[in-house]
Amino acid sequence: MQKGVIGTAHVQIRVLDMDEAVTHYRDRLGLLETDRDAQGRVYLKGWTEADKFSVVLREADEAGMDFMGFKVLNNEVLASLRQDLIDFGCNVKDIPAGELNGCGARVRFDSPTGHMFELFAEKEVVGRATGHHNPEAWPMDLKGMKVTRLDHCLLYGDDLDGSLELFRDVLGFWLTEQAMDGDVRIAQFLTTSMKEHEIAFIRSEGKGQFHHASFLLESWEDVGKAADMISMWDISIDIGPTRHGLTHGQTIYFFDPSGNRNETFAGGDWYIPGMPTTTWDAEKLGKAVFYHARELNERFLTVTT
Amino acid sequence: MQKGVIGTAHVQIRVLDMDEAVTHYRDRLGLLETDRDAQGRVYLKGWTEADKFSVVLREADEAGMDFMGFKVLNNEVLASLRQDLIDFGCNVKDIPAGELNGCGARVRFDSPTGHMFELFAEKEVVGRATGHHNPEAWPMDLKGMKVTRLDHCLLYGDDLDGSLELFRDVLGFWLTEQAMDGDVRIAQFLTTSMKEHEIAFIRSEGKGQFHHASFLLESWEDVGKAADMISMWDISIDIGPTRHGLTHGQTIYFFDPSGNRNETFAGGDWYIPGMPTTTWDAEKLGKAVFYHARELNERFLTVTT
Amino acid sequence: MQKGVIGTAHVQIRVLDMDEAVTHYRDRLGLLETDRDAQGRVYLKGWTEADKFSVVLREADEAGMDFMGFKVLNNEVLASLRQDLIDFGCNVKDIPAGELNGCGARVRFDSPTGHMFELFAEKEVVGRATGHHNPEAWPMDLKGMKVTRLDHCLLYGDDLDGSLELFRDVLGFWLTEQAMDGDVRIAQFLTTSMKEHEIAFIRSEGKGQFHHASFLLESWEDVGKAADMISMWDISIDIGPTRHGLTHGQTIYFFDPSGNRNETFAGGDWYIPGMPTTTWDAEKLGKAVFYHARELNERFLTVTT
Amino acid sequence: MQKGVIGTAHVQIRVLDMDEAVTHYRDRLGLLETDRDAQGRVYLKGWTEADKFSVVLREADEAGMDFMGFKVLNNEVLASLRQDLIDFGCNVKDIPAGELNGCGARVRFDSPTGHMFELFAEKEVVGRATGHHNPEAWPMDLKGMKVTRLDHCLLYGDDLDGSLELFRDVLGFWLTEQAMDGDVRIAQFLTTSMKEHEIAFIRSEGKGQFHHASFLLESWEDVGKAADMISMWDISIDIGPTRHGLTHGQTIYFFDPSGNRNETFAGGDWYIPGMPTTTWDAEKLGKAVFYHARELNERFLTVTT
Repeated sequence: MQKGVIGTAHVQIRVLDMDEAVTHYRDRLGLLETDRDAQGRVYLKGWTEADKFSVVLREADEAGMDFMGFKVLNNEVLASLRQDLIDFGCNVKDIPAGELNGCGARVRFDSPTGHMFELFAEKEVVGRATGHHNPEAWPMDLKGMKVTRLDHCLLYGDDLDGSLELFRDVLGFWLTEQAMDGDVRIAQFLTTSMKEHEIAFIRSEGKGQFHHASFLLESWEDVGKAADMISMWDISIDIGPTRHGLTHGQTIYFFDPSGNRNETFAGGDWYIPGMPTTTWDAEKLGKAVFYHARELNERFLTVTT
Repeated sequence: MQKGVIGTAHVQIRVLDMDEAVTHYRDRLGLLETDRDAQGRVYLKGWTEADKFSVVLREADEAGMDFMGFKVLNNEVLASLRQDLIDFGCNVKDIPAGELNGCGARVRFDSPTGHMFELFAEKEVVGRATGHHNPEAWPMDLKGMKVTRLDHCLLYGDDLDGSLELFRDVLGFWLTEQAMDGDVRIAQFLTTSMKEHEIAFIRSEGKGQFHHASFLLESWEDVGKAADMISMWDISIDIGPTRHGLTHGQTIYFFDPSGNRNETFAGGDWYIPGMPTTTWDAEKLGKAVFYHARELNERFLTVTT
Repeated sequence: MQKGVIGTAHVQIRVLDMDEAVTHYRDRLGLLETDRDAQGRVYLKGWTEADKFSVVLREADEAGMDFMGFKVLNNEVLASLRQDLIDFGCNVKDIPAGELNGCGARVRFDSPTGHMFELFAEKEVVGRATGHHNPEAWPMDLKGMKVTRLDHCLLYGDDLDGSLELFRDVLGFWLTEQAMDGDVRIAQFLTTSMKEHEIAFIRSEGKGQFHHASFLLESWEDVGKAADMISMWDISIDIGPTRHGLTHGQTIYFFDPSGNRNETFAGGDWYIPGMPTTTWDAEKLGKAVFYHARELNERFLTVTT
Repeated sequence: MQKGVIGTAHVQIRVLDMDEAVTHYRDRLGLLETDRDAQGRVYLKGWTEADKFSVVLREADEAGMDFMGFKVLNNEVLASLRQDLIDFGCNVKDIPAGELNGCGARVRFDSPTGHMFELFAEKEVVGRATGHHNPEAWPMDLKGMKVTRLDHCLLYGDDLDGSLELFRDVLGFWLTEQAMDGDVRIAQFLTTSMKEHEIAFIRSEGKGQFHHASFLLESWEDVGKAADMISMWDISIDIGPTRHGLTHGQTIYFFDPSGNRNETFAGGDWYIPGMPTTTWDAEKLGKAVFYHARELNERFLTVTT
């Protein structure tokens, strides 16, 4: 948080059918629905999150990610970073407060990898689902996988060097992990917090591809239970349960009814500013991605929305 | 980290017998010994920590804590906070680089609760024990409880309001949790990171009391295994395994051979800047501290070093 | 099962208020209600149990255990053991089929410790809650602690030697574990299966005391969650979470609203016929019972129903 | 155990290189080496097993299973079952006491699926590795995956109906689970204990094929750690971590250096005599075998030794 960016705060995901999507994200992942707006967008958050929403679902003809939002410490930071983004060459657009229910003014910008991002300083605080007064350990009535929060997104795109510059030099992220094919960085993981990644990019031919949104679970036990539920509900699975080499998180991948990939994961490494960047060699990429199978599957490499 | 303080980086603990202490902290908690110095001090770190040390053991006639150290982002932050501490009224002392092996210049200061703290910007980076090049998930040869890192310290003292001012207003910590007896804050938990506490204080009559140093485990499963090992090695136990109400961490308390209390714990809440402060009422203090038994034990309240 | 006794199959527990008891055993422990009878008794079973019931609740003026029932392989075994019990000197009473809904004829007998037991060969099979045709891993709609089955009961009484003779020599149980105070056996654990105990006795002054009924959980993770729920519902706790030395199960004890003690536990040792009997010395009894605290609490030793 | 067969007691496995095999089974799986004999065979057991050995390794030119052994209650049972096997039509051979170190006389017989089995009544009891006097929860110095015991073997062969008759009708096993392709039983799981399987068969074209030997772990957490170690030691993996539909065990498959498949697993269903046989339909076989991926891999179906 050296430049005042706190971390990943929300993602707006396009879904083909809102009812199916709500069933998936609310009743199966276990996010809590907190609002709907006049456009028909549905707002959700994890039970440990205090801000009003972290996931916004928007019905559209095509799946994918509209944008990811990062919260900053205050409006001074917001104004200063807005100028820095312009100076860097981003297309910057101001979104007025209230365009998303309960959210203050947002500064939207694009990245060299062709994705849309936002910064904002203010969002309505509704508190953790346990409350903040003599709170119980967890809410008794959680559903499905009981995801605790939105954790990060992984994006595919071409200009990784440009997006690294943007996130590291303009926004103050640290490069925690990378995969290198000789001199070419084929994967980069970035954070502003103790999380090993708030955002990650993998090199591809295209622009603006959405690989997955990731949600945190409490334990490997919960990864196992998530896997069981994925089968019980006959959700399309990608891979897992397994562990990553990169970040060492314990994970399972699957698809929402619109084809957007989700990850639920637990554990993994902590980042403390000053730690060396962890590097995986391209010839170890199988193990870097799927630590146990030690080989990539085609689907993971090619299917995005 | 709004003022550049990254978080808890080290603690120097006084022990009565160094050999016994090394057996305890290295072979039973599972810290890695990284160095010894001319004074006979022993340096250790957790396997996930990249800096050279987080625990320094010093043989002395009396157990307790010499000081806790916090790392800051860089030397500019260090210089600026040094002045702020003087302006606040702390007794500030400059410790030259190298007084602790591998550590840069430290700014030592006292607190209204009578404890000694330090800030520093530089420490030798030795890397996580897994390395940072194609790293395995964990080192194969860890010992004992396999603690991953020093997490926080809990201190007892009289002037909680003064220490809150110091940490919150001067050093930029956030007040994440508190226990209130009417208007009197009897416990305060503070952080600069995503951890629910980097440091905590409980109100007592005295000054400078050391309640415990806490080390992070990976899971509740590991809390259970730690409890087993505590029995196998006949280590003096305080309480646990159980959960806290405050922070909701899953925990066990025990004593090192010198009588210093240790905690090993897993899980617990995450803090994101902007979250409301969580408040526990004094009449719920039993549950706040020991969530399952819902009552305090005398030892936990009165035994400090 | 050398004489055809399969193992612990049911327990009838007296409760002071049926509504409160059903809330406790069904909604909090998570047993499934399977029937009620004309006497007002309520029948329950764990989700992994195939027979119609394992717990019968009977409203009465005094808490405690009416009887424990063991299933045997078939009616020939039942007839033969009935005669052996008479020959041993038990008071034997025949309970006709149907006295308990769905249960065949039962042979009731008393023990030297003053408890009532039953043998039976037939009970209506309703199947595991997942069914037996392409069954899912677990039922999606379980409540509370999700106990999987009735596991065993622990009883207090005076004539341990007599009850050992009865269970070992007449019914073919094996003595898996014992605690010895010199030549006096103060605790004895007996089984007919791979479970370390189907029934256990602790020496006391009295007769017919009920210490606890124990229910199996899937993991230490579930013991921790049970502990959390015990606090959330403000259930009276006895001790835990912890581990036993005897059997090494991971456990938590608490009380139903009538004052009957319950245990929920996970793990622990397996018994294979031919294994040596495990012996704990009286001076290690604290550790034998509560492996982590290594001391007994008065309540555990004296409170029975 | 209706006819006195206690359960799976040992397996003799052919390995191509004894040193590599010992490293694998002792240092990586974590079995304890208990003896070697004049033939060069190496004896091992899991730390919870009381009998002298459960795995015997024999160096040979071809990998595979020599035989599986089941323990029976006593010599009367042994003599009686020996006659029953002859009457059933098995080729029965008497192996004298001492041919395996510490093992009494064995009755060897073949099965319609072309596998070799043995019954025996006596084996030297060395006790669990924790001992049987005030035993600690687990031994401090276990290696690798810390498998607790040999659990079962899975065999491929043609005449499933014949082997079912042999195990069920002659030896008193219960059919706990099966997979049915119309009227054809393509998989059958059998037990004499509370374990969901002591032995399992899958229909193939051949005779005497060895699919895997399975070892029990304590928890899903340990399945995850086993998976990590499999990667760290670059052991050839088959599939996992995942869960089975059949038995619902949580599992990982991999190969010893000779190409024999091993399973390490945790959890899964319990069998109580009288439970209905669980049936999986052939069209659900993917889910029956690999509950999460819901599809079979070719390797699992075709590679045997």
